[in-house]
Amino acid sequence: MLFWWSMQAESLLYEGKVKRIYRLGESELIQEFKNSATAFNGQKKEEIKGKAEVNAKICSIIFDYLNAQGVPTHFLELVSPTKIRSLHLEMIPVEVVVRNRVAGSLAKRLKEEEGAKLLRPVVEWFYKDDEQGDPQISEDLLIAFYQISPDDVSKMKELALEVNRHLTKLFAARELDLVDFKLEFGKDPSGRIVLGDEISPDSCRIWDAKTSEKLDKDRFRYDLGDLMVGYNNILERLEKK
Amino acid sequence: MLFWWSMQAESLLYEGKVKRIYRLGESELIQEFKNSATAFNGQKKEEIKGKAEVNAKICSIIFDYLNAQGVPTHFLELVSPTKIRSLHLEMIPVEVVVRNRVAGSLAKRLKEEEGAKLLRPVVEWFYKDDEQGDPQISEDLLIAFYQISPDDVSKMKELALEVNRHLTKLFAARELDLVDFKLEFGKDPSGRIVLGDEISPDSCRIWDAKTSEKLDKDRFRYDLGDLMVGYNNILERLEKK
Repeated sequence: MLFWWSMQAESLLYEGKVKRIYRLGESELIQEFKNSATAFNGQKKEEIKGKAEVNAKICSIIFDYLNAQGVPTHFLELVSPTKIRSLHLEMIPVEVVVRNRVAGSLAKRLKEEEGAKLLRPVVEWFYKDDEQGDPQISEDLLIAFYQISPDDVSKMKELALEVNRHLTKLFAARELDLVDFKLEFGKDPSGRIVLGDEISPDSCRIWDAKTSEKLDKDRFRYDLGDLMVGYNNILERLEKK
Repeated sequence: MLFWWSMQAESLLYEGKVKRIYRLGESELIQEFKNSATAFNGQKKEEIKGKAEVNAKICSIIFDYLNAQGVPTHFLELVSPTKIRSLHLEMIPVEVVVRNRVAGSLAKRLKEEEGAKLLRPVVEWFYKDDEQGDPQISEDLLIAFYQISPDDVSKMKELALEVNRHLTKLFAARELDLVDFKLEFGKDPSGRIVLGDEISPDSCRIWDAKTSEKLDKDRFRYDLGDLMVGYNNILERLEKK
């Protein structure tokens, strides 16, 4: 398969802080992970050797697992150490955050310590608009202001909670605590809502279930220790059968 | 009735920025409006002659109307020019905001001009906790962190939207545009969710439907003109049959 896709004409569609996206034929994409780590809207930035490979691998394992569980995702395959082949979706400009514990911006907002377990998973929504500063918004506003259909909002929420059930289980079996994570969805040509983007320690909070050691990007954000030690730890555990 | 309640022992239960609450017997309260106007968490403050009376009167008209429409409210009667007799509810520490247009803090959050009509009413939630700074929270968090039951959250939302339907109609018939407003709910001894607190131009945004002139507390917040001119304008229109 590596051979096949590399023969296709790839055209760069978008270059972000940590990824490059190439168009592949009519209906597919190549997502290339970069070694950059960024935080605080790009104010903190560093190149970290090996990060692209580890993230591509973790992302593939997670999406393979979700595909196997019947979750509709854009993921097709890992085609090189840093590149993923996926369906080309029409993305919905919303970040969907699922939280199992109070942490990060929620802890700040509530003026609470990190770590409190939520009685049930909480879904939060952020509208992707640089000019507006990606405001957090309610389901009501998604519908009433941003004109996303109530059905699409319900479906994204349902899928986000389904992904959370699967991933919580996957991680728990490796003694990892999935604290929170961010998803993005899009539509395939038939209009079906499909999970897109990436899932990696860049976009999740993952703690050691016993020690609560942070293994995710918070290591970089808050200088808690070598990022790659955390990421490799997650990858090793996920690779265990 | 004035005579009857004045014979009861009243004990001051709470004094806030713009109201005093007295206990009346076993199961009722007296809410006394004050002449104070405050804004920005009490940083701006002024005594405004006649405000208490006008607010008590507007509040009575609105609650009488809601009672007549079958909405369960705590309101019993206006017992003096500045005092309202009501049921003593066990209050739920949540501010429920209903919005028909983008204005106020929502306009700031979205970096949008005030006035855009929402496709349908939007309900927002703020948890009342001074130490936390009354954070805005989602329905999910109300349930998963603040441990309010899903049924209570649904019922508050249903009632908030019902109040909005009634009040939008009441105001529109007087060429007033109900932009947004804040409600608080409590439970009666049977556990039923009942509308409490007040509804007045202190807690609503009300614009002239033709000119969009602001007639509510934003006049005081942003020095847009005499507060009482706006409040009296609303009262006069509401008193018209």
